[in-house]
Amino acid sequence: MARSRSRSFWDKYRQRWEATRSLLCIGLDSAVDKLPAAVQCAPNPIWEFNRRIIDATCDDACAYKPNLAFYLADGNRGCDALHQTIQYIPDDIPVILDCKAGDIGNTMESYANAFFDGLGADAITLNPLMGANVIEPVLTDDIRFAFALVLTSNPTAADFLQRDGLAEHIAGWLNQFPLEQIGAVVGATHPGDLRRLRQLMPGRIFLIPGIGAQGGDLAAVMKHASDRDEDPNILINSSRGIIFADRSRDFAGKAKWQAHLLREAIHDLLQIT
Amino acid sequence: MARSRSRSFWDKYRQRWEATRSLLCIGLDSAVDKLPAAVQCAPNPIWEFNRRIIDATCDDACAYKPNLAFYLADGNRGCDALHQTIQYIPDDIPVILDCKAGDIGNTMESYANAFFDGLGADAITLNPLMGANVIEPVLTDDIRFAFALVLTSNPTAADFLQRDGLAEHIAGWLNQFPLEQIGAVVGATHPGDLRRLRQLMPGRIFLIPGIGAQGGDLAAVMKHASDRDEDPNILINSSRGIIFADRSRDFAGKAKWQAHLLREAIHDLLQIT
Repeated sequence: MARSRSRSFWDKYRQRWEATRSLLCIGLDSAVDKLPAAVQCAPNPIWEFNRRIIDATCDDACAYKPNLAFYLADGNRGCDALHQTIQYIPDDIPVILDCKAGDIGNTMESYANAFFDGLGADAITLNPLMGANVIEPVLTDDIRFAFALVLTSNPTAADFLQRDGLAEHIAGWLNQFPLEQIGAVVGATHPGDLRRLRQLMPGRIFLIPGIGAQGGDLAAVMKHASDRDEDPNILINSSRGIIFADRSRDFAGKAKWQAHLLREAIHDLLQIT
Repeated sequence: MARSRSRSFWDKYRQRWEATRSLLCIGLDSAVDKLPAAVQCAPNPIWEFNRRIIDATCDDACAYKPNLAFYLADGNRGCDALHQTIQYIPDDIPVILDCKAGDIGNTMESYANAFFDGLGADAITLNPLMGANVIEPVLTDDIRFAFALVLTSNPTAADFLQRDGLAEHIAGWLNQFPLEQIGAVVGATHPGDLRRLRQLMPGRIFLIPGIGAQGGDLAAVMKHASDRDEDPNILINSSRGIIFADRSRDFAGKAKWQAHLLREAIHDLLQIT
């Protein structure tokens, strides 16, 4: 069944949160050379892996986030796996394609058409370095949604994003764009950063990577990045910590367990913040 | 014939410049909906178009630069066209895949493997917003080369790159990386910007878009961005101004003519700077 194009990411996210009280985004960083032996002989190993991961984890997922790099790295077979994966994810669970696209004009329009219309993603990630021209092709269709990089938690984020208030400048600059179409990627960094960025972007959905395999303090994130709005407006992403929790034949069962644990941990922390 | 992996982009660029005295990079922004009618019925229109453009223009080209967006937008057929195009380009003409990739860790490594090893590109473009972690996977193999975005010429470059000296900061920061593996994307902007960035990055190869369809003053670019080294260390890119010069059956002949004119104009300006 093809994914419907009638509901926006914004609506799907809110409805999924209301229906499940899950804020967990599961990152499908399904690198072909990291897959368990049990799927390596399938005609399309990534697709076989993702199908079983989705079957096992979808009750606990608020969203899924495949990262384009791992699919391109497997050539046409990987591109097929990406397309099949997005189509397979239940329509009420929004899909974020993590591509960090950052081009302009008809080039960015081509990316947007490929990712939203061609693949069926509900949202993408984008890199705002070239300015508003990067965001414009997302806004041409009000069903499209993109998360702009604001602050990342990798070691060299200090080179630019954490220098001279650039992350804060991006955060303020995003206020010109509608909450219903533009979110923010905010890494699980220091509590002070999270608090300041939330103050600068009330009501905006935060996609927070860096929980799980990359470390990051979940309690601090939930305390400082949750919105004071009636909705928390966050998605906590974990990728390898869930999908590669185990490489045995029971990899999907272990992924389900890890997803459930993290979803519950997020939920418990939300009650007390 | 597969492209050889024995020579780096740095070497291919220098040898091509010495052999042809061309500094022209031809951008293969081959959007499927913009192709002339003469190729629309081919089994793979983009590949058919590119093949004829390459046959017509390769004598005048120092490099080719396909932009990933236009190939992804045509699905698996587009990905096939990209692969065939790169393999078809004569091995002594370096290929830059314009993807503006900007991720980190094993994600960026996957992009690099896909683009360098899988597709056979000699160089890629990258977005440095997340810092040195973006560049590290390029440096793991000394045959790899990447052009980092430093300053672009699009209208909203003022949002970040032209604000508070960010472009100059990126330029200085690039000095920690070897000239033989990292170049700079520098848009055809104001003469003052070009002069300052060249002073900050002596010996580094500049990839200069924004000539042709996007406007931009070629004379100013050649005067201010050329290196004072014995080599000019620049590549002047034109995409639509060459490949879409004409949509008639003779599109390739017109592209050849435009490529030749621009190559000569660049060369003439080099003599007098």
